[in-house]
Amino acid sequence: MTRPTIRDVAQAAGVSKGTVSFVLNGRPGVAEDTKRRILAAAEALGWTPSHQARALSVSRAFAVGLVLAREPELLGADPFFPAFIAGVERTLSDRGQSLVLQVVPEDEEEAGYRRLAGSKRVDGVFVLDLRVGDTRIALLEELAMPAVTIARPDVPSSFPAVLVDDRPGIVAAVRHLQELGHRRIAHVGGPAHFLHAAIRKDAWERTTEDGPYVEADFSAAGGAQATRALLESGQRPTAIVYANDLMAIAGMAVAQEYGIAVPAQLSVTGFDNTELAGYVSPPLTTVRTDPYLWGREAAQALLDLIEGGDRHGDIPVPPAQLVVRGSTAPTGGTER
Amino acid sequence: MTRPTIRDVAQAAGVSKGTVSFVLNGRPGVAEDTKRRILAAAEALGWTPSHQARALSVSRAFAVGLVLAREPELLGADPFFPAFIAGVERTLSDRGQSLVLQVVPEDEEEAGYRRLAGSKRVDGVFVLDLRVGDTRIALLEELAMPAVTIARPDVPSSFPAVLVDDRPGIVAAVRHLQELGHRRIAHVGGPAHFLHAAIRKDAWERTTEDGPYVEADFSAAGGAQATRALLESGQRPTAIVYANDLMAIAGMAVAQEYGIAVPAQLSVTGFDNTELAGYVSPPLTTVRTDPYLWGREAAQALLDLIEGGDRHGDIPVPPAQLVVRGSTAPTGGTER
Repeated sequence: MTRPTIRDVAQAAGVSKGTVSFVLNGRPGVAEDTKRRILAAAEALGWTPSHQARALSVSRAFAVGLVLAREPELLGADPFFPAFIAGVERTLSDRGQSLVLQVVPEDEEEAGYRRLAGSKRVDGVFVLDLRVGDTRIALLEELAMPAVTIARPDVPSSFPAVLVDDRPGIVAAVRHLQELGHRRIAHVGGPAHFLHAAIRKDAWERTTEDGPYVEADFSAAGGAQATRALLESGQRPTAIVYANDLMAIAGMAVAQEYGIAVPAQLSVTGFDNTELAGYVSPPLTTVRTDPYLWGREAAQALLDLIEGGDRHGDIPVPPAQLVVRGSTAPTGGTER
Repeated sequence: MTRPTIRDVAQAAGVSKGTVSFVLNGRPGVAEDTKRRILAAAEALGWTPSHQARALSVSRAFAVGLVLAREPELLGADPFFPAFIAGVERTLSDRGQSLVLQVVPEDEEEAGYRRLAGSKRVDGVFVLDLRVGDTRIALLEELAMPAVTIARPDVPSSFPAVLVDDRPGIVAAVRHLQELGHRRIAHVGGPAHFLHAAIRKDAWERTTEDGPYVEADFSAAGGAQATRALLESGQRPTAIVYANDLMAIAGMAVAQEYGIAVPAQLSVTGFDNTELAGYVSPPLTTVRTDPYLWGREAAQALLDLIEGGDRHGDIPVPPAQLVVRGSTAPTGGTER
């Protein structure tokens, strides 16, 4: 028994070898019924792709990589990550590619990218969790590794970026609070070396007139601690804009512990619109983003870049949107 | 310039080629300082592994696979998944392997495994989210694909299993409530076709004397709806054991909406010990599990199976443990 070839499949399906190759490599653009006929013929003949042979023949891995330098705990609590991956996978599986995932300690991140590049295990990578002055951009350019960044870096980058912008969401949250009469609006931010934390803080700073800032770490514990600091300070805010839902939900529980009613005495907003946001008491006013869409678009851009080889423009995505629920209310007579 | 070989690295480091190969393939068991010397020599010479050459030479992909058939929304909310992956990655990166991830619609799951096997892209797979009478076990045996299951399937399986057992955690939650005087203890479960949901329900059923059961879907929305049904029923329970934290936290918000105080009038327990569990109001009594450890152990067992080729025993892990917090209290005079 010899292994059936693409020629055998083409003959059985009555189409050209090129069309078979196109379909079996998961490329789009072939009519549905032709595709079905080819796949049926391939299955009947027992044809299976040899990934290794395919990869060597065109020097491609048919896979893309994601290096994540995060603590396991922060991975588990962040709704961004699985939704983004699900979006990436949607595009990859449509195009016959797979995802190689590496979770590394932060000090091994550069080594992680070097390994992926050196081993030819992937054809390109996603760059998430951009940092202020991120050194990975220069590293990937040095490695000649195709990449797509999530958000535009604050350093020069020749890679296409999914134009995620958290600004409008934070501005909308602050304006909503201002319309409700709030003037002392605090911000509990994420670690300042993350670009998205810096951007959220900057958007808050430019929109508020007055209000204290506490840097936290995006965790529930950090959000609780920052809230305690704010509630115990002499100048208690009437509203707090949190940089994510996890800190906001933990913050509401701390307010309750201090006997401060949300929203009557303290208004609270989050960011992410996590699954729980609408199911806590009171339901959380927050900012909805769409990491599933970002993942789909990022994968599309990365595969285009790998296959086309040429420069690819940035990818616009809809701006983050405010979702008003029960955790925000007008400043009332209960304010001291 | 020719590409430096393992022989060059061995010469520079003053060790045998075998030791270099051992270290560069990420195998354990070489003294730390020898390892460091070899890695330094490899770096100085600019040696990089060729994954494809390596994979072809021994017919190995040096990667393992994970096929997930879940809706993106359920992925995002489930703390199990990222923690498990982080544990898997810890072991894989220690041993120079990588993870290929596929997220597929449920009806393409079998095709996902067949693709991974046919393309020789991975040397083995993890089987998560076991279902009652799971057909994947027979499929993987047919494909001769090494596998490790998370929990022991209820069908015959020749694969090693990480012996996750949710029973003791649920039993401990019910006993804790019984000690507080509760008799009408309800259960809000997950979808009954999932083995872990079935096992949690069975453990509750065998330990309680009396109490209604509502099947939900592990989501916050499902937990809220199930809680409404229980609170509006003629025979209101005094305690509810939820099959996960997400449903329990959503359930507490529903109780608050009905003016039912937790824990004075209704005790609540969760399952997972998610990051938020200790930071909601009241803090949630729940069951702590350790998916990070399971991931580490599962990866260890899978690599041993791939490399050793022989049968590997099941892997015991510590049982789930009850964490008592503020959402459970004695049945009081407020009970009707």
